[in-house]
Amino acid sequence: MGLIVQKFGGTSVADTERLRNVARIITDTYKAGNQVVAVLSAQGDTTDDLIEMARKVNPNASNREMDMLLSTGEQISVSLCAMAIEALGCPVISLTGWQAGMYTNTVSRNARIKRVDTERIEAELNQKKIVIVTGFQGINRNQDITTLGRGGSDTSAVALAATLDAELCQIYTDVDGVYTADPRTVKGARKLDEVTYNEMLELATLGAQVLHNRSVEMAKKYNVRLEVLSSFTGHPGTKVKGVVKRMEKSYISSVAKDKNISRIALIGVPNEIGTSFKVFSLLAQNHINVDIILQGIGHEEGKDICFTVAGSDLLKAAGLLEEHRDEIRYARLETNTDIAKVSVVGAGMINNPGVAATLFEALYDANININMISTSEIKISVLVDKKDADKAVQVIHDKFFSIG
Amino acid sequence: MGLIVQKFGGTSVADTERLRNVARIITDTYKAGNQVVAVLSAQGDTTDDLIEMARKVNPNASNREMDMLLSTGEQISVSLCAMAIEALGCPVISLTGWQAGMYTNTVSRNARIKRVDTERIEAELNQKKIVIVTGFQGINRNQDITTLGRGGSDTSAVALAATLDAELCQIYTDVDGVYTADPRTVKGARKLDEVTYNEMLELATLGAQVLHNRSVEMAKKYNVRLEVLSSFTGHPGTKVKGVVKRMEKSYISSVAKDKNISRIALIGVPNEIGTSFKVFSLLAQNHINVDIILQGIGHEEGKDICFTVAGSDLLKAAGLLEEHRDEIRYARLETNTDIAKVSVVGAGMINNPGVAATLFEALYDANININMISTSEIKISVLVDKKDADKAVQVIHDKFFSIG
Repeated sequence: MGLIVQKFGGTSVADTERLRNVARIITDTYKAGNQVVAVLSAQGDTTDDLIEMARKVNPNASNREMDMLLSTGEQISVSLCAMAIEALGCPVISLTGWQAGMYTNTVSRNARIKRVDTERIEAELNQKKIVIVTGFQGINRNQDITTLGRGGSDTSAVALAATLDAELCQIYTDVDGVYTADPRTVKGARKLDEVTYNEMLELATLGAQVLHNRSVEMAKKYNVRLEVLSSFTGHPGTKVKGVVKRMEKSYISSVAKDKNISRIALIGVPNEIGTSFKVFSLLAQNHINVDIILQGIGHEEGKDICFTVAGSDLLKAAGLLEEHRDEIRYARLETNTDIAKVSVVGAGMINNPGVAATLFEALYDANININMISTSEIKISVLVDKKDADKAVQVIHDKFFSIG
Repeated sequence: MGLIVQKFGGTSVADTERLRNVARIITDTYKAGNQVVAVLSAQGDTTDDLIEMARKVNPNASNREMDMLLSTGEQISVSLCAMAIEALGCPVISLTGWQAGMYTNTVSRNARIKRVDTERIEAELNQKKIVIVTGFQGINRNQDITTLGRGGSDTSAVALAATLDAELCQIYTDVDGVYTADPRTVKGARKLDEVTYNEMLELATLGAQVLHNRSVEMAKKYNVRLEVLSSFTGHPGTKVKGVVKRMEKSYISSVAKDKNISRIALIGVPNEIGTSFKVFSLLAQNHINVDIILQGIGHEEGKDICFTVAGSDLLKAAGLLEEHRDEIRYARLETNTDIAKVSVVGAGMINNPGVAATLFEALYDANININMISTSEIKISVLVDKKDADKAVQVIHDKFFSIG
């Protein structure tokens, strides 16, 4: 029995009944003899509602005042949750980011945690209280309230778990763990008992929105044991840790797809040094993330550069490239939105070069064409036609995870 | 040109348009060369909505957690107001109670301000910023958020005006000042340019909800010049100060009525020492305010005790007295809800004993029966039948305020 940090996302605390459910999970953990620090997000759509209120008053409001406004969302959920716990008869106190000593830098709306001064939290824990802390927010050296940006509440929880040397940091969400593939669309998909930090990082990048990368990176750095689980089912979730043991066959942990991508091809770019740099620095300066890049070796008439961007960035990216056409001097720009990315992730593939071959074989057997290929140490991604995406995930999953 | 504290109530900041209006009032004052500290209440019904949310989760939530929850209301309004001021191009910063150094005692939900540490506010003012502060809230020595209870935002504003030595504390509300009588029901009612602190205190007690007594008492104690005015009309309001000069005839400043009272009569109470004490300490212990008390001189069979309570307290008060009947030993308990209280208030009546006579004459001429009479140094209240209340106010107002 030790200290457990539990984080509950916005859907887990969205209304009175769910708050009561969260209060039960927390008090059950407490009654089992643990110290509990719970970190909460704002309820449901509260943050979006507050942003909309602000937009009506001033679409160009300063980030400092936005943080002042947005931080109320978590303050509401922690106080209500504390009241729900009071109703269950357990000693409890709620703390805001500044009361909990979450010190950040001064970058409003996207602050980074610099240190956690846990004096107050430890004093409350020593008085046998359950401590409920606002996620997503902190205070900077000017005594101004800051918010942490996307994935902020997960990061708050991991930072607290690291500083308090917690036994476990449980991230409660609306899915009950990490699966070998999306269980809503892939037959035979199974929940994984364990994944590594690195696998989790790759999965997050692939759009499996279970945990934000910031928090996984921090957990990896400070060796915080994570568990992802559902606040609705009560089932055991998926543990995230440094090393996991797997059966021989399971070199990979998960198959994922991302249909929300588009491909841009610049055809007939001059065979000159610096062309790629021009293209990708232009996109980076405009905050457009580029994923898979493929560049042909070129011939006399020039070379082709292909890359993928998020579907929502396509128009902006294409517009920028049109604007700078004279500078980049490509012959033709082609876009394709009828594609999808299918990836396999697994720490085991580092020592097992056969994974790529198995993947290609599965797609070949299913008569699915591969457009582009990209690999990292623990991930292989392929671009397929969008119509083939679901089938591709299924046949790959069958190949790697079928029993026998 | 100096420092002006402006307070805006919940109706003044209820929606985006009204927030913009408040932002204009503040920036106009700033552009005229003043330093401005504005104190805001929560928007419209926000506080009631938050209380209702809490009630659903836990009807017996602790006051400490209620304060944590309720304080978000003002934080939302100050940040939105700051955004509206940003949109008008003026430098501005919003501050919570704890950021503004509003230190209170530890009585949650009904905290008293102990001191204001204005270091942060002064630093922001010196940087030429408009400062927007949350009303109604502070921080106690344990670093917990507290709220000030009823009238809290007015009190926050007056405390800031006193500590910052402001030239003027303007209380913006939805009425444009203090009137000689309620202008919605009394013909010829006029706005007063000035009233004294004491008159304001009596008027507040009479249910004229312009300013809360706590704030007026504090203003009187620290000699803060107040002005009550409307955020909607832009008209000059009513100044509240120590001494005001009036025309000869105006010994009184205002006529008020309160229909929300009930009378309780205990008939045939034994002629013993301590009976009144028993009755009124019983009511006081149960937080029931008693207003006018009339006790007959008594005769052999006993005496009668009559008093008034707020209409909403009648059932509770009568129930308590029934419960303790054996102890108090009255013969009969009678209640009457068909009554109303009509009062005249005026610092001038101290030196003019004719005021009561003039009042009685007005009611006699109008054939209105007086049930009970109560007087203080600057107030005379009479109890009349509820059906006569409006007429009583009008004839008294005519008598004192008619021209010629």
